[in-house]
Amino acid sequence: MDYRQAGVDIDAGNEVVRRIRSLARGTHTPGVLSEIGSFGGLFRMSAAGLDDPVLVASADGVGTKLRVAFMTGRHGTIGRDLVNHCVNDILVQGAEPLFFLDYLATGRLEPDVAVQVVEGLAAACRENGCALLGGETAEMPGFYADGEYDLAGFIVGAVPRARLIDGGRIAAGDVLIGVPSSGLHTNGFSLARRVAFDQAGLRHDSRVEELGASIGEAMLVPHRTYLPLIRPLLDRGVIKGMAHITGGGITDNLPRVLPQGLHATIDRGAWEVPTIFRWLQRTGKISDSDMLRTFNMGIGLIVACDPAGATLVLESLVAAGETAAAVIGRIGAGGEGVRYAAR
Amino acid sequence: MDYRQAGVDIDAGNEVVRRIRSLARGTHTPGVLSEIGSFGGLFRMSAAGLDDPVLVASADGVGTKLRVAFMTGRHGTIGRDLVNHCVNDILVQGAEPLFFLDYLATGRLEPDVAVQVVEGLAAACRENGCALLGGETAEMPGFYADGEYDLAGFIVGAVPRARLIDGGRIAAGDVLIGVPSSGLHTNGFSLARRVAFDQAGLRHDSRVEELGASIGEAMLVPHRTYLPLIRPLLDRGVIKGMAHITGGGITDNLPRVLPQGLHATIDRGAWEVPTIFRWLQRTGKISDSDMLRTFNMGIGLIVACDPAGATLVLESLVAAGETAAAVIGRIGAGGEGVRYAAR
Repeated sequence: MDYRQAGVDIDAGNEVVRRIRSLARGTHTPGVLSEIGSFGGLFRMSAAGLDDPVLVASADGVGTKLRVAFMTGRHGTIGRDLVNHCVNDILVQGAEPLFFLDYLATGRLEPDVAVQVVEGLAAACRENGCALLGGETAEMPGFYADGEYDLAGFIVGAVPRARLIDGGRIAAGDVLIGVPSSGLHTNGFSLARRVAFDQAGLRHDSRVEELGASIGEAMLVPHRTYLPLIRPLLDRGVIKGMAHITGGGITDNLPRVLPQGLHATIDRGAWEVPTIFRWLQRTGKISDSDMLRTFNMGIGLIVACDPAGATLVLESLVAAGETAAAVIGRIGAGGEGVRYAAR
Repeated sequence: MDYRQAGVDIDAGNEVVRRIRSLARGTHTPGVLSEIGSFGGLFRMSAAGLDDPVLVASADGVGTKLRVAFMTGRHGTIGRDLVNHCVNDILVQGAEPLFFLDYLATGRLEPDVAVQVVEGLAAACRENGCALLGGETAEMPGFYADGEYDLAGFIVGAVPRARLIDGGRIAAGDVLIGVPSSGLHTNGFSLARRVAFDQAGLRHDSRVEELGASIGEAMLVPHRTYLPLIRPLLDRGVIKGMAHITGGGITDNLPRVLPQGLHATIDRGAWEVPTIFRWLQRTGKISDSDMLRTFNMGIGLIVACDPAGATLVLESLVAAGETAAAVIGRIGAGGEGVRYAAR
C-alpha cells in the first residue's frame, strides 16, 4: 500500500506544480518577492505605492458554469471567469488587484486539464495586472467524479483609505449607470442548465440560431473584467458606489451599496436585454422577477454618481472602449431595495 | 421554473450568511473596516503596525479528512484544521495572520452543517488573532453528494521585510528542532482511510484499544496551530528557517527551505512516533519511506537555527507550554533533500 495506490499521485502533482509555476511567473508584478513553491506567496506592500492602504479581499467560485466546461471539454476560459469575477468584486470598493490565489480540487488529477484551467487564470491575471501568487491543487480521490473539479479563487487588492468606495455618499436623485455584461457571467447556471439541457433537451453542441452559436458556446462566454473601464475613474472622486451584478441579480446586489432609507428605480426600457436571457426566459417560462433575481440580464456593473457626474462617467467609459453603457435608473428617497419601472 | 426548483435556495443561503456574519463579527480585529456582506472584506494595513510589511498569502484545503467528518457527523473541528493549517503555512515565513476567508461548497446547503463548519473556522480565527474577513458559501446542485461539501481557506498575514524568514541563512552545522504534531493533521487521509476502513474494515466508531479512542475520533484530532509557540521567537532573529510538515511529509517539505548544496539528516530515534502512525504502518503494511513521505510522523513543524540558538528556541518553546520539542537533526554540506539516520 502506498499513496499512489490510494489514488494520490504525488509525482503527477509535482509535474503540474512545475507547469503552473511557469505560468504564474508570467503574471508576476514588481511587488512579488517569491515564486509559487515556498509555503506562502510573498507580496511587498510598498510596491503598491498607496497612501494608508486598505486591503480588500474576496473569495469566490465559478459555480455550476463548471459543468458546461466539463460538457464541452473546454477548460481554458473558466479561469478567466473566476479571476474577472473576483477582480470586479473588489473593484466595486475602489480597489485594484494585487494578487490572486486559486484552489483547484479534483478526484484524480488530469495534468492537461489542470494546466488549461491555470492558463485561463494566468491570462486573466496578466490582463488585470494581478499576480498569480499561489494556490492549492488538491487531489481528493472519490470526492469528485472523474473529469470533474471545483475551482475557487481568492483575491486581495488595495485602495488608499481616502479613495475607498462604499456607497455611503449615495443620495436621492443620484443616477445609476449600467455597464453591459458579456453574457451570463458566472451566475444562474443551475437554472440555465436546467432550462437548456433538461427542459429544451439540447446537447452542449446544439446550435441555437437565435444565439448564433451552440448553446454551450453561448453559455461559456467569459465573465468580463470591468477594471480597464473603471480604473481611469477611480481617482476622479465621481463614483459614489458600484454594484457587481452576480448571484441574486440586480434585485439582490444593488441594495448592498445603498444607504438606509433609499431605494433604486431601474428603468427596464433603458437597455436591451441580450438574446441569451430572452431565450432562457421564454424557453424556461421564467417570471420577470425570477429572471431579475437570478441573472444579470445584460447589466454586469452598476455605477452610482450624482447627475452632474454622469456625463464624465459615460465619457470616460466611451474613451475606454465601452460605448453601450447608459443611465438605467435613479436613487429615490424612502423605502429600500430595487423597484422596476416597466418597459 | 425558478431558482429554488433548480436546487438553489437563496433564502436558506441568506439565513446562513446572517448566522455566519455573527460568527465572523466575533473574530474581528482593529484592522477590520467592514462586515461580511459588502462585496469585499476590508482590512486597514496600518492597523498591523509593521515596518515595510510583506504580505504572505496561502490557499489550502482540508483534503479527504472531510470524509471522516462526514462519517462521524462531526463538523465542528474541520474548520479549526483548515485555519491552523493556513496559519502554520505563513508562520514558517515569519508572518502573523491578518485575515482569513473560506470557500464552502455543497450540493444542497444544510444550514446547521454550514454553521458548525464556520463555528470551527471562527473559533480558530479568534485563537490565532486572525479576522474571518469573508468567504463564499456556494450551493452547487448535483456537484457534491448529499451531506458532503468541500472547504478551502485563504489566509493573508504580514511580516516586516527585515524579519522575513526564508531559509536563506541556513548553513551546514545548523540544527533542526522538531515540534510535535497533534495527530495526522490534515494530510495522508486518503491512505489512512484506505487502511482503517477498507483494509482493517473498521467503522468510524470502532474502538481501537491501542489508540484509546474510536478510529474516527483519533483521525479527527485537530491540526494544531504553532503560532502561540513561535510568536515569542519571531523578533529574536534566531530562527533561520521553518518547515510546516504537510502533504509529502518531512521528506518533501523540509527541502523546501534548504538552500542549494545542503542536505538534512534526520535522526529517527530522536522522537517517539505516535501510536496512530505506528498503527497505520503496521495495519497497512506501509514502508518506512512511504510513511515519511505521506504523514508527519509526529513532527508538525521543524525549526532550523544555529547550534548556539537551539537552547534559546527550546527554552522559549517550553515557556510557551511545549515541552516535547527536541533536536531531531542537522544540516550537512553537499547533496540535497533529507537523509534519515536509522533508529
